[in-house]
Amino acid sequence: MEIGIIGAGSWGSALSLVLSENSHNILIWAYEKEIAEEINFQRTNLNFLPNVTFPLNVMATNNLSELNNFDILIFSVPTQFIRPILTQKIFDFSKKFIINTAKGIEKNSLLRISEIFYNVAKLNLEQFIVLTGPSHAEEVAQRIPTSVVMASTSHNHEQDIQELCSNSYFRIYSSDDIIGCEMGGALKNIIAIAAGVCDGLGLGDNTKAALITRGLAEMSRLGVALGANPLTFSGLSGLGDLVATCNSRHSRNRYVGEEIGKGRSLIDIQANMQMIAEGVPTIESAYFLSKKHDVQMPITEQMYKILFEGVHPSYALQELMSRSSKREWWW
Amino acid sequence: MEIGIIGAGSWGSALSLVLSENSHNILIWAYEKEIAEEINFQRTNLNFLPNVTFPLNVMATNNLSELNNFDILIFSVPTQFIRPILTQKIFDFSKKFIINTAKGIEKNSLLRISEIFYNVAKLNLEQFIVLTGPSHAEEVAQRIPTSVVMASTSHNHEQDIQELCSNSYFRIYSSDDIIGCEMGGALKNIIAIAAGVCDGLGLGDNTKAALITRGLAEMSRLGVALGANPLTFSGLSGLGDLVATCNSRHSRNRYVGEEIGKGRSLIDIQANMQMIAEGVPTIESAYFLSKKHDVQMPITEQMYKILFEGVHPSYALQELMSRSSKREWWW
Repeated sequence: MEIGIIGAGSWGSALSLVLSENSHNILIWAYEKEIAEEINFQRTNLNFLPNVTFPLNVMATNNLSELNNFDILIFSVPTQFIRPILTQKIFDFSKKFIINTAKGIEKNSLLRISEIFYNVAKLNLEQFIVLTGPSHAEEVAQRIPTSVVMASTSHNHEQDIQELCSNSYFRIYSSDDIIGCEMGGALKNIIAIAAGVCDGLGLGDNTKAALITRGLAEMSRLGVALGANPLTFSGLSGLGDLVATCNSRHSRNRYVGEEIGKGRSLIDIQANMQMIAEGVPTIESAYFLSKKHDVQMPITEQMYKILFEGVHPSYALQELMSRSSKREWWW
Repeated sequence: MEIGIIGAGSWGSALSLVLSENSHNILIWAYEKEIAEEINFQRTNLNFLPNVTFPLNVMATNNLSELNNFDILIFSVPTQFIRPILTQKIFDFSKKFIINTAKGIEKNSLLRISEIFYNVAKLNLEQFIVLTGPSHAEEVAQRIPTSVVMASTSHNHEQDIQELCSNSYFRIYSSDDIIGCEMGGALKNIIAIAAGVCDGLGLGDNTKAALITRGLAEMSRLGVALGANPLTFSGLSGLGDLVATCNSRHSRNRYVGEEIGKGRSLIDIQANMQMIAEGVPTIESAYFLSKKHDVQMPITEQMYKILFEGVHPSYALQELMSRSSKREWWW
């Protein structure tokens, strides 16, 4: 098969390696012309995925319209860049399958990514597939065993695409819960930033385990309010990705939190980062969504206060620990 | 209140500190006479919980019958020691509340701990409370913020006891699912050993996140077959404890797995450990329970083969990754 990948970041690049091993031909679109040229002529992408040599069936371009011939397009750009790409009206989506790998909620509109495709590109939801789960690009590029989940409303198409992408180190589970998989992938970045704050404050495994568990509970509450199946959040797209991100030295979101816990300001941290921490805008979007749907999200609320209202992390933690006694599950 | 704690291991000792801060008087029973004397006269328990000084409202004894006067008894001994204590018929259980903190399944009988109390001591289930969740004793002793769950069938009594034990760094959630909380606490040790094996083999965050997620799925499957609520496994007693144990340098179960992953034998590892890794007998019990109830537990099965049938960990991993494609949730 010929597969187009939109976005030459670390994950787009790592996926191209998985697919090229499965004998597909890949064309990657890179926003920066120099990156496309580096992939084509040096066979590397040192800025985004070091220690990798691209095989000859992976090529790159800086020209989006070259990808219009492909029946399968993988979107691997940050959430806030999807609408600007779609509004260019370059693609005829009538016969394409879209696999999205970005994990976020659009700012201001508060839309999930499938909703952006539906609203802006009029994409039929049967042609939309979410690929998500615990998958650090650096590890997939090293062929470390990885399991992910693919969510789709069309079971047949999903099975075909599952086969295209699976191999001995990349195992794909299937799900029919697009909303749950999208929300899990987006919201876990909030908890990852919070986990980083715990690390920055020098707290322990007990605190982080409680944060992950209570984080998952509030992620599930918001997801259920939006129509997701609560069990999805206990799968690879929710819990799995949450665990990987909260404990990882690779995670940009956890890193942002750790620096905040140590006392640095968000503006200062972001000014020195090349890649985007999706969790920062997601905190804002999720906070407003929780207000809109009247869902209690105490951790998200405290993270919003820390990032955007200058509340001190230690004070926020104290607020969380001193809430009234609760049962474990309530909606 | 006067509270008896049976077991002077790390967790019994740490709990005595929490309760003593809440102004209760504590008597700990230690199996070893020297430990009881060390607590009483040196105010330390260096073997099991170093860097701690016991306050004066914590005392210890080597004589079990001295605890018969207490209305609240906390059991904090390894699972396989509970029946031998109960068969001594030292306690009149008619008016006592029992809080159990051990996490396991009895060998051969395959009973949960509440079932041992019911069968051997004829304890009314309304007097039985499970205290479980992500709580490394070393961190609780340092007052690091910790959240746990208390499960009981009697909401009123539970609230009273919740109040006795809570404080600013020890937060207690409540649940009515004794079976789910018992099974989560027991089964997570299997996955913790498996996570250690991944560490010993040098695998990455992606693999461990997938293991934790799929591990939770099979824990939930067995729990549901035994009558648990599946959501309980996504709470502190399941997911929370699983995450804390799989990533912790404190966990004895993860340590056993890591050494196995590096190629050492179980007999050799256990011969050099002072404390008990509950997960080892739990693998055996859970494996037989899964056969009895016809529940698929692929990770538990591979761990059984590694520990008791000499299968190489790399081969077991390959077996897990090459299973046929699956949907995320099936029972």
